[in-house]
Order: sequence, then C-alpha cells, then structure tokens
Amino acid sequence: MSILTRSIPKLLAIWLLLCAIPMAVPTLLMAQDDAAAETAEVSDGDAELKAGYDDLVSAQGDYAYAFDFFSLSMVWTVISAALVFIMHLGFATLESGLTRSKNTVNILFKNVFIISIGLITYALLGFNTHYPGDNWMIEGWLGIGGPIGDLNADGGNTFGYGGVALCMTGYGDFIFQAMFAATAATIVSGAVAERINLLGFMIYSTLLVGFAYPWVGSWHWGGGWLSGLGGGDAAFKDFAGSTVVHAFGGFAALAAVMVLGPRKGKYVDGKIKPIPGHNMPLATIGVFLLFLGWFGFNGGSVLSADPTALGLVVTTTALAAAAGALASIVTSYLMLKSADLSMALNGILAGLVGITAGADVVLPWMAVLIGVIAGVLVVFSILLFDKIGIDDPVGAVSVHGVCGIWGTIATALFQIPDSGVSLVSQIIGVVAVCVTAFLFSFILSIILKTVGLWRVSEEDEQVGLDISEHGQEAYPDFGRQTAH
Amino acid sequence: MSILTRSIPKLLAIWLLLCAIPMAVPTLLMAQDDAAAETAEVSDGDAELKAGYDDLVSAQGDYAYAFDFFSLSMVWTVISAALVFIMHLGFATLESGLTRSKNTVNILFKNVFIISIGLITYALLGFNTHYPGDNWMIEGWLGIGGPIGDLNADGGNTFGYGGVALCMTGYGDFIFQAMFAATAATIVSGAVAERINLLGFMIYSTLLVGFAYPWVGSWHWGGGWLSGLGGGDAAFKDFAGSTVVHAFGGFAALAAVMVLGPRKGKYVDGKIKPIPGHNMPLATIGVFLLFLGWFGFNGGSVLSADPTALGLVVTTTALAAAAGALASIVTSYLMLKSADLSMALNGILAGLVGITAGADVVLPWMAVLIGVIAGVLVVFSILLFDKIGIDDPVGAVSVHGVCGIWGTIATALFQIPDSGVSLVSQIIGVVAVCVTAFLFSFILSIILKTVGLWRVSEEDEQVGLDISEHGQEAYPDFGRQTAH
Amino acid sequence: MSILTRSIPKLLAIWLLLCAIPMAVPTLLMAQDDAAAETAEVSDGDAELKAGYDDLVSAQGDYAYAFDFFSLSMVWTVISAALVFIMHLGFATLESGLTRSKNTVNILFKNVFIISIGLITYALLGFNTHYPGDNWMIEGWLGIGGPIGDLNADGGNTFGYGGVALCMTGYGDFIFQAMFAATAATIVSGAVAERINLLGFMIYSTLLVGFAYPWVGSWHWGGGWLSGLGGGDAAFKDFAGSTVVHAFGGFAALAAVMVLGPRKGKYVDGKIKPIPGHNMPLATIGVFLLFLGWFGFNGGSVLSADPTALGLVVTTTALAAAAGALASIVTSYLMLKSADLSMALNGILAGLVGITAGADVVLPWMAVLIGVIAGVLVVFSILLFDKIGIDDPVGAVSVHGVCGIWGTIATALFQIPDSGVSLVSQIIGVVAVCVTAFLFSFILSIILKTVGLWRVSEEDEQVGLDISEHGQEAYPDFGRQTAH
Repeated sequence: MSILTRSIPKLLAIWLLLCAIPMAVPTLLMAQDDAAAETAEVSDGDAELKAGYDDLVSAQGDYAYAFDFFSLSMVWTVISAALVFIMHLGFATLESGLTRSKNTVNILFKNVFIISIGLITYALLGFNTHYPGDNWMIEGWLGIGGPIGDLNADGGNTFGYGGVALCMTGYGDFIFQAMFAATAATIVSGAVAERINLLGFMIYSTLLVGFAYPWVGSWHWGGGWLSGLGGGDAAFKDFAGSTVVHAFGGFAALAAVMVLGPRKGKYVDGKIKPIPGHNMPLATIGVFLLFLGWFGFNGGSVLSADPTALGLVVTTTALAAAAGALASIVTSYLMLKSADLSMALNGILAGLVGITAGADVVLPWMAVLIGVIAGVLVVFSILLFDKIGIDDPVGAVSVHGVCGIWGTIATALFQIPDSGVSLVSQIIGVVAVCVTAFLFSFILSIILKTVGLWRVSEEDEQVGLDISEHGQEAYPDFGRQTAH
Repeated sequence: MSILTRSIPKLLAIWLLLCAIPMAVPTLLMAQDDAAAETAEVSDGDAELKAGYDDLVSAQGDYAYAFDFFSLSMVWTVISAALVFIMHLGFATLESGLTRSKNTVNILFKNVFIISIGLITYALLGFNTHYPGDNWMIEGWLGIGGPIGDLNADGGNTFGYGGVALCMTGYGDFIFQAMFAATAATIVSGAVAERINLLGFMIYSTLLVGFAYPWVGSWHWGGGWLSGLGGGDAAFKDFAGSTVVHAFGGFAALAAVMVLGPRKGKYVDGKIKPIPGHNMPLATIGVFLLFLGWFGFNGGSVLSADPTALGLVVTTTALAAAAGALASIVTSYLMLKSADLSMALNGILAGLVGITAGADVVLPWMAVLIGVIAGVLVVFSILLFDKIGIDDPVGAVSVHGVCGIWGTIATALFQIPDSGVSLVSQIIGVVAVCVTAFLFSFILSIILKTVGLWRVSEEDEQVGLDISEHGQEAYPDFGRQTAH
Repeated sequence: MSILTRSIPKLLAIWLLLCAIPMAVPTLLMAQDDAAAETAEVSDGDAELKAGYDDLVSAQGDYAYAFDFFSLSMVWTVISAALVFIMHLGFATLESGLTRSKNTVNILFKNVFIISIGLITYALLGFNTHYPGDNWMIEGWLGIGGPIGDLNADGGNTFGYGGVALCMTGYGDFIFQAMFAATAATIVSGAVAERINLLGFMIYSTLLVGFAYPWVGSWHWGGGWLSGLGGGDAAFKDFAGSTVVHAFGGFAALAAVMVLGPRKGKYVDGKIKPIPGHNMPLATIGVFLLFLGWFGFNGGSVLSADPTALGLVVTTTALAAAAGALASIVTSYLMLKSADLSMALNGILAGLVGITAGADVVLPWMAVLIGVIAGVLVVFSILLFDKIGIDDPVGAVSVHGVCGIWGTIATALFQIPDSGVSLVSQIIGVVAVCVTAFLFSFILSIILKTVGLWRVSEEDEQVGLDISEHGQEAYPDFGRQTAH
C-alpha cells in the first residue's frame, strides 16, 4: 500500500492551503485600475453581443423563428456536450493503451475521478467565474465563482441569460463548458502516468480543473483581458481552445513531468529505452473517440446552430485531422523507417489540436496545411522531448502543448482574408497562458513533492500502480504480465 | 455441449405455455369496475395532453413554428434512441469486463440476443400495449398489443398520432421506446452471468422484454393506474424510469439470482472469495458508454426539444453521476481501504439510476445530494448482498434495484417546490413494480429450473460457458487463461 | 522488414500511372452522344429537385420557416456525418477482433490510413465529381473533380448551393459524403487482412476511395446514367447505398481476395481449418458501433430532417438489424449446432446492409423480412465462400457483397405500393456496379501483384504483419501470443 492509505487525513488541510496561495499571488501583482478599465470593455463586449443577437432576431421578423432557432441551438449544444464527454473515455483508453498493463487500473481510476471532480468543481466554483455579479473577482483577471443555482430561474428559455446573449439556456451553457473543464487535467494525466502518487494527482487535478483552468479561461472566454486586447479589435483569437485548453494542459503537463522525472527503466546507461504501450486496439479506440468528440468540441464552440459556421468548422476539423495523420505517417516513416501506428494516432490528435484555434476562420486547404505541419511537428517534438529526458508516455506535451501553440499562431498566418486575427495578440495570448500553466503546475508539483505526495516509491513503481495503489489487476485472468 | 444443443425443439412449446400463465393470473385478480374507472381517467389525461399541445401551437400563432419544433423534437428523439442503443454496448462491455474471460463470449452473445429480441418483440407485442384500440387489454392494468403497422399512415407528421399528442411521429415514439424495452433484460443478464443456461436465459429475457416490461410500464407510461393515482394530481412520478426500468430490472435480477444460486467458488468454507473481473478497460468503456447513453435516456424522456427542461435534465443527470462516483470512491476507501475502480464505476451508475426518476424536477444541488447518497448506498448494498449469499457478479441488484428505489423516493424528498410529487404515491409505485418484477421473475425462474433450463452443469460452469455453450473462446491467441 | 521499407520511392510513379489507366479505358468505351443525352436528363432532374424544394418553401409561407428547417437539417447532417465517422472505428475493431493478434497493429494502421486518405482524396478529387462545371468529366458517366474551394462562397446558407437544392450547406454536404467515401475501402480491408502488403494496400485503397468510388457513385447519386434509367421514372433505387457502397466494396473485396489467395494454414491437405478471431469483445464493440453509425448512414441519407421519412428509416433500419441477428443465430445453430457469436454479429450487419437500399420505402414487417432473409443468406454465403477457397477472414464479401445485392433486389420486391421501384432497373444497377467494382479491383490487384506489392512473403505472414511491417506488437505485455 502506498502513501495514499496513510495520507487521506491530510487532504483537506493541504487543499485549502493550496487554494489560498495561487489566489493571493496574482492579486498582489495586478493593478486595480487596469482591472477597472477591463471591466468597462467587458460590458461593452457583452452589450455588442446582445445587440447582435437582437438584430438577428428582429431581422427574421418574428419571435417564433427565434424560439425555434434557440431550441435548435440548445439541442446542438447538448449533443456537443455529450460528444465532449465521450472524449474523456477517449483519453482514458488512449492513455491506458499507450502504457503498461500493470498501471491500467490506475489510469482508468484517474480518468473516472477527473471527469467526476471536474463536473462537480465546475458547478461549485468554475462556472460562475465567467458571470459578473455571481463571483468574487478582480474583473477580467481573476475570479472564483460561487456554486450554480437555478439557471432556469432568470429566464432559462429567453435570450438574455446572465446578461450575456446566448443561443442556449443557462444549463446548456453550463453542461457544455463543464465537459470542457476536465479536459486540461486529463491531458496531464497521460504525461505523468505510471509513477504519479494517486492522492497527489487527485489534489493536483482538483486544483487545476476547479481553479486554474476557469481562471485562465476567463481571460479569453469570460470577457477578460485577452478578449480586450487592442480594444477588442485585435483580440486574442482561440476559437475552441488550442491555447486555453490544449496548450494550457500541455504546459501544465510539462512542468509536472519535469518535477516528477522519468519512469524507471526509460533511461538506462544514457540510452533511451522505449516502453511500448500494452494494448494498441485500446489506444486506437481512444483516438477515434477523441476525433468523434471533436465534432462537439469544435462544432459546439460555434455556440449556436448557425449552418454556415457549423459546416465550415466540422469540415476544417476533419480535414486537419486526416492531414495530420498522413503527415505523421510519412514523417515517422522517414525518421524511424517504419509505419508507426502510435505516430499515426498522434498525427490525428496533432491535426485536431492544431485546427482548434482557427476552425471557423480558415478554408479547407488552409486546414489541410495546418494539419500537415502539426503532423510533422508532433513527430519531431516527441522525439526531441524523449531525447532531452522529458518522459511523457503518451506524447501529451507534444500533441497538446506544441501543436496547441502551432494552431494558435497558424490562425494568424492562414486566416480567411479580413478575419482580423493579429499575430501579435496570438503570441501574447500563447505566452501568457503557457507561462501561467507552467508556473502554476510547477509550483503545485513542487509543493506536492515536498509533502511526499508526488511520486510513488521505487518498489511501488516496479510492481505497478494497480497493485500498489489499488490492490487490483486489470487483467487477472491472463496471469502476471511481462514486467518491464 | 450443454442442454442448449439438446433442447431446441422444446423451445416453442415452453414459450407459448409461459406466455399464457402470467397473462391469465393478474386478469383474474382484478376487478373490472376498477379498470373501467381508470379508463375514463386515462382518456381525460390524453385529452388534457392534447389540449395543452394545441394551446402551445396556437400560442405561437402559426403552424410553421409548430412544424419546425415538431421536426426538431423528432430529430432529438431519434438521436436519443441512438444514445440509448449504445447503452446496450455499454452493458455488454461492462458485464463482460467484470466477469471471467471464460464466460465472455456467452455474455456478448446474450447481449446481442437481448437487443435483437427486444426490438422485435416490442414491434410485435409491446408498443401497441400503450395505445387504446390497438390492443387486447384490461384498460390501465394489463395489455398485449398487436404488431405495429404503418405508423405514418394516420398522420405521421401531424401532432395527433394515435390519439396522443406527441412532438414526434409514431415511428419516432416507437424507436425510442423500443430501445428502452430491452434494458430491463440486460440488467438481469449481468446478475446471472457465468452460470445461467443459455436457452433458459433466452426464454426468460424474451418474456421479460416482450411481455412483463411493457405490461408494468403501461401502468405508468401507458396511462395506466399508476398515472391515475390520486386522480392524477398526486400521480406516481418516475421521469425516465428509476423504478419502471431500473428497479424493475434490479428486482427481476434479484429473484433470478436467488433461484440460480451463487457461482461455484464464490463461497468456500463459509468465506466469501472475490472473483475479479477479467478486463477492467472493458468495464470502464462500458460505464462511460452508459453515462453517454444516459444523455438520451433522460434527455430523450423530455419527449420534445423543450430547451428549458432539456438543459435542466442533462445537467442534473451529469452532476448526479459525478457525485455518485466521488461518494463511492470515498465510501469504498473508508470501508475497503483501497481506491476501488469497480466501486467508482458503480458509483457513476448509482448516481445515474438515482437521478432518473426526478431529473426534471430537482435543482443541481439536489441532484448532487441524490447522487452522493446513491453512491454511498451502492457500496453498502453490494457488500451486504455479497455477505448474505446473493452472488451478483456486476452489482446489478444494488445499482439498479436499490438505487432505483432510492431515486424514486428521493424525487419526493428533494423536488423543486410545488412540483407536486407525493411520497405516498412514490412508495405505492415502487412497491407495486418491485414486487411484480420479483414475483414474475421468481415464478419464471422456478419454472425454467424445473424443466432443467436455468443453470448449467458443474462441469460446464468449471470449463466456462464459452466452451460449453458456444464452442468458442474469447481470446484464443492468449493461451488458456488462468482458471479460477 | 517487408517490401514497404524498400519501396517507398516508387510510390508516386506507380500511383500516377495507375490513376491514368482506369480513367482512360472507360472513356474510350463510351459514346459521346449517350453522355450528351444524359446531361440533359440530369439537368432536368436537378431542376425538378429545385422546383420541389421551392414549392416546399413557399407552401410554408415564409422564409423564416425554411431557414429554421434548413438549419435543423444541417445539424442532423453533421450529426449523421459524426455517426458515419464512428463506423470507421467499428470496422477497425471488428476486423482486428476477428483476426489474429499478430496482425492487429497492421489492421488498425490500415483503418487509420483509410479514413485519413479518404477524407483528403474526397476533398481533392471526389466531391466535385458530382457537380457540373467543377469537374473534368463525361457527364453522367465519368468524372474527376478538382479540389473543393470555399463551399460557403456561393451562398453556403442558401438553398441553391452548386445548382442543386439541398437542405444543408455545401460543407454539410461535403462532410457527410466524405465520411461515406472511405467505407468502400474499409470493406476490402477486412477481406484481405493478415497477408496483404501494406504499401500495396495503401495504393489500392487510395485509388478505390479517391477515384473508383466517386466515379461509380456518380452514376447514381451524381445524377448519372443510373438515375436516368427509364427516363428517371423507373430509375435505379438505392437509398443509402446497399449497392453503390456495400456491394461495391464487397465485390472489390472478392476480386482482391481472389488475386491474393488464402492465408497460410487456412486450407491444409484439402481441409478447411478455422482461424478464430483473437478478441471477441473487440469484434462485438465493432458491430455495435457499426449499428450505431447506421443511424447516421441511413438516417442522414434522408438528406433533411423530414420527420416522416426519418422515423420510418431509423425504424426499418433497426428492425432489419435485429431480425438479421435472430435469423443468423437460428440458421447457424441449425447448420453448425452451436450458438455462434461471430454469425450473430454478421447477422446484424447483414440486416443493416440489406435494408440500406430501401429503408425509406418499406414498412416495418417488410424490413423484418428483408433482415431475416439477409441473416439466413449471410450464413450460407460465408460457409460457401469458405468452402470454395475464398478466404475472407471477416466475411466481408458475404455481408457487404451478397447482402448488398439482396437488399437492392428486395427493395423492388417489398416496396410500399406505388413507390415505383423497378426490378429491372435494380438488376441493371446491381450488375453494372458489381461488375465494375470487381473488374477495377481485379485489374488493380493484378498490377500490384505484378510489381510485388500485393502479398507479403511467407516468412512475414508467419511472424505476423505487426512485426514484419510495423516492428511493433499490439499486446507486448502479454508475452508472445500463440502462433497459428
């Protein structure tokens, strides 16, 4: 039995302490007047949004139209939430497929925990971060919301929910965003697999999804400072989250892995020893489910059933994924002299992450190019990180971190003319989010390491986390699997 | 080769006999005048429904609106049917993951059979049970419908299909309900796994989904006596079927297991010996697919695309699932001193079953509490049933039976003020459904046991049902798996 | 290492050569005047379609209605595309489940490649095949389109996209059709599994999805000669592709297998030796995902959210699948004296393929009969092909080829009265498509065989394609799996 069994009583105290630190630090660093200026801009943004929607309604001439389109958008949002939900199964199967069978129960358990804690903390803290009046915050920079109440109360089926014009009810907005929230922690889960302390990871992921993700996300989606760059005219553009979800998760993962160190047996006598995944059908199921879920991740981010935007977004998303796979197949063939399934799978994900920032402002051929470059990048990045001693079993830092950055920059390079994406704002946004994610994760990892909750013992790692943390095997009927 | 290979000729005769008995018994027990009184109430209920819908249509001022909303509701219903369909894959993978590899083919085969026979018998017998004039029935108590005809014939695209106002065509109504119908038998499938006779189970599940489920369901959903309790004002409230689907299946499973007895090797010398599932990724895939399917199971039960209800329902459903998982993790940690993946998975299902009765009349915090209590209950219930000799390999009785009851009662305890749910009616409904399910299943199991079609021989159980019933292994390339 | 590692430089040259040959041959065989006559008919057909849609719009009296219904149809189309996408995971898991573990990585890799190359080539060549003016073609007979441009440019959200009236934008049309396109090659993938050369298959599938499938499909769906049979009044009827997708794929597979020959060890000393699939849960997951995907494959082929058609289509589809499974279970029990899971799974697919041609013009009882006959046919067909030396590891020729033909013929036999399906046209269509698919595949296979790119060496086959083609095992932790 690991440290988990001895440490459960410390949990609450550590948690509260950890919550207080990151909330206090940036507060001190910020000027109140900056924040006040942002507040005004935010309100302007909301007003514009609302006016735009009112125009749309009146242009159609009747409420009946608007109600139907509203209901349709709501149905699409709920379906998108279901599709993003299934990405969590995709991550669970991909991560367990690409690691060893002795750590399978552990990975599955972590993923069950993440989606559960993600939904609950988002209801308790995260969601209201984005809505003025319902939260304790320095407008545009830092916020902690209270628990959600009855989101149908102030007109669930009208267009003015929470002061923001949306083509969905408050609950529709909540469920879609809640499914997003847990994604960041899931990305980290794969990178730290096979040697992380379970309790430590549970604390880490709770803070990441309950606090850090909605905090950083609010800079962009909550009407925060990133959405106000250049007076809003040259705002940071990140359609569905190449940066605020994927690069955020990827750089949090990088810091976590750096503090954690590589798996035993990965670097022996200065040589890199590959540790193959134990179940390639499982990994493939994972990637296909992630691809499926991306129909909702990007398609749902249209935030309505607007047919013009929706068709473009799902087309660019699918083409980037396909292009990413083909590019990774060719690149890894040239680099490794073999037709590498893992790289092909990572190529799909690279294309998907890459297109996420600009899916609604690029044409099909641009999407193909973005995917191709992402598919090449991910192979080099995985090989590079492997070489410099960053042991990331599933390639999460490369797929989500590197390709997330690429996608965000690419949106400025490849946009449909006059889409108004500014390269400068993209760079500012990427740097701000990645640095914050890295630092938050680094400090939290160091703290957890200090209190002995970050890495399991050598013996536990050798025997596998399934036995040491859970007392359970993933495949007991198949005898003891090859240890390596 | 088991009894299956020698018994196929007896199938039709037994089936016909078994169909006749349960249909005759309750008929004799019922007073005709009671039924007549109910009939009037049912018609009133239908008229009210229809009037309400007509009001909605005229309130919007034009047919165009209504047709669009109708079409949208139809699309949502079809998608919900697809989501409920995928729950059958969820059950198949969960049940095979949580049992031994030597019985895997058998479990998969049973699940393929159940969805197939479920769809066909529902078309032949079940669906028309719910519609006056198309069936042979004592109105409100007992019905056997005839086969479905052309459900588009009497206005598939109008609002008055079958005398009941619905936001979908007759085929939409059929396909959604047909996907539900097979669920009850699937619940039993897991509980009786690893020792049930295949032919016996095929007969049992055919009668359960073709006759017993629509019969009991018609009390509530077909305008039967449960929907008329208290003159309809304090009717039994079971939104999507905590009781009429899940507790029904759970108590049928309990009776089936009691007649069947525990697996060999489960209780040795008065000690309980755990029999671990052979493939935890498979079990996890199952639970995530069930969670996904529940978006349609509960969301589709709104029976329209009403955005206000839909948003609330999917939010309460997801939060209850998440809360159930966290509660089961904590509870099982405290009870068993380990981070138990199986219990975490059962916690998700417990929360989902628990919220199913009241998903449309509770607020988020109520859903969280319902889920938490379900997640605690399911752990205690599984340990208790294990202790008293009820060997339920997947915990189906606890998940569906116990948490189904809890959810139905909880709806009265936690409802949004003025939702009008009566605790007395809830208790009446739960008792009526669970007792009927138990007795139906008990009598049927005894009959099948008597004719030698209920449990396989000791040798067949030892060698595994895959070889003895199917002559096929699930994983032939991996050598003979550890026998235990 | 196989020939792949030595042959990559030849790829482009061979590819270009192969593209040129099949494009030139049929051109020479066709009379230009025939084609010209067809062109006029095509335009008439388009005009009728457009007029019909305009009537629908004006009948509803306002644009607002039409826009909402348009948006709803678009959402349904996107969801259908996502469902058809997941069929590719279904094929990947079914095919790897039904073959040996030593070839699993290879099958997964092929399926990742097919969906990727399918999407890209459809964007580059396939899609515009169907639209006059955007392609290089002999109207109605043969076409190669150029790459897609901005499909929103000429009114993405209006009803006249590309001169054809559709209830979806150009991108919606593209993404749905693109997901279809890769299906044909996937069907072949299963039949040639366990001994095909990887590079050869990559070339083969690229040409099949990028050129042959859209070419043949354009006869029917692109307003080509099959849609003009009998002056259009007795046109070939193939609702969602029993023939132009499934029989096409099945007969291409037949030719490929005939050139390829059986697997080593399948036929020994004149006896047939069964080679069991290595992972039955994986195969079952595959079939359930295919069933799920068929909601979109057939449901999406309504090409709008028309509630009357949609409800009928999903109901007939599900009932045929269920009936097919039950028929296969009974048939294989009578033939093989065992409850055969593989046959039950193939029965589901047989029913689905069988109903695909006529899902919108048959009643429920007709769908059940079509499914039953398909379920019987598939068992006999699989046993027959096995006997005559056609080694098709997953039964693809029987499921897709034989049942595809059956479904197309059955549509004429079972149609709702006055649906106007002509038995003669059905036979003409089936023969034309199957012969073309067979010949195209046969010639291409012969060419690839001649250049040494069709079958792996005996040693590579013995050791398995995972090691020989990919240098990677699917399940490395489970030790070396039983070789056979």
